Amino acid sequence: MKKSVFGSPQEAEAAFYEALERGDIDAMMEVWADDEEVVCVHPGGPRLTGYEAVLKSWAQIFSSGQRLRIQISHEVVLSGMMLTVHSVHENIAVQGEQRPGQPVVATNAYLRTADGWRMIVHHASPAPAMPQTSDLAPAAGPKVLH
Amino acid sequence: MKKSVFGSPQEAEAAFYEALERGDIDAMMEVWADDEEVVCVHPGGPRLTGYEAVLKSWAQIFSSGQRLRIQISHEVVLSGMMLTVHSVHENIAVQGEQRPGQPVVATNAYLRTADGWRMIVHHASPAPAMPQTSDLAPAAGPKVLH
Repeated sequence: MKKSVFGSPQEAEAAFYEALERGDIDAMMEVWADDEEVVCVHPGGPRLTGYEAVLKSWAQIFSSGQRLRIQISHEVVLSGMMLTVHSVHENIAVQGEQRPGQPVVATNAYLRTADGWRMIVHHASPAPAMPQTSDLAPAAGPKVLH
Repeated sequence: MKKSVFGSPQEAEAAFYEALERGDIDAMMEVWADDEEVVCVHPGGPRLTGYEAVLKSWAQIFSSGQRLRIQISHEVVLSGMMLTVHSVHENIAVQGEQRPGQPVVATNAYLRTADGWRMIVHHASPAPAMPQTSDLAPAAGPKVLH
């Protein structure tokens, strides 16, 4: 099987969310570094460590057959030469349903490996319904909208 | 005022949790990079971006006067030259109360700046009550204990 090589954290991230939308376990696990130190936290779930544990969790999630649409917004990028951290809002909807899902905030970290950039951390957690005004206009400070 | 310089991400992290236990806003904000791109997610809260928004949130939290004891466990360290990511379990108890608080999983990122290592991301979210067996024995894979 031809192995994907991601030339940037952005490419790895795009592949991650595409695999998540498609429920494609092979594509998903190509994004992750094959390492015992990778970390994954699904919303409300325990922290999982290691490639095998992360693989099993995604396989279980995808086995439901539910397909999602995910829009990423409000991205903050913190870049290093070898390690990059992205903070994003995930706006998730179930395909075929009208109502929007609960917003999720995610911290994603990518490592530059011999095989290109790979995901090493995905930490996702439920967030309140409205994005903060401070995300759009940082100078205004945090404002609780609800 | 003498400014703290942290020689390693570990030093910055120790100062972070010490400031959190003491409810010391000055010590807390010395740990953070003074940057508009810093990101903080308190458990169940919205994502906050920027030094000022993060400062206000900690000031509000500390104003309750409640003092915490925090034990860090199950640390996973993902190190780069300029950027390092730590994943930890925070075991938080309120001082003077017997019952343990809800476990929290946190992703902390530190950047090497001209002023030493500073925190740039703190993403904390509630976790299920028991640490996963997989954290202690990764080879065993994830096991749902409850």
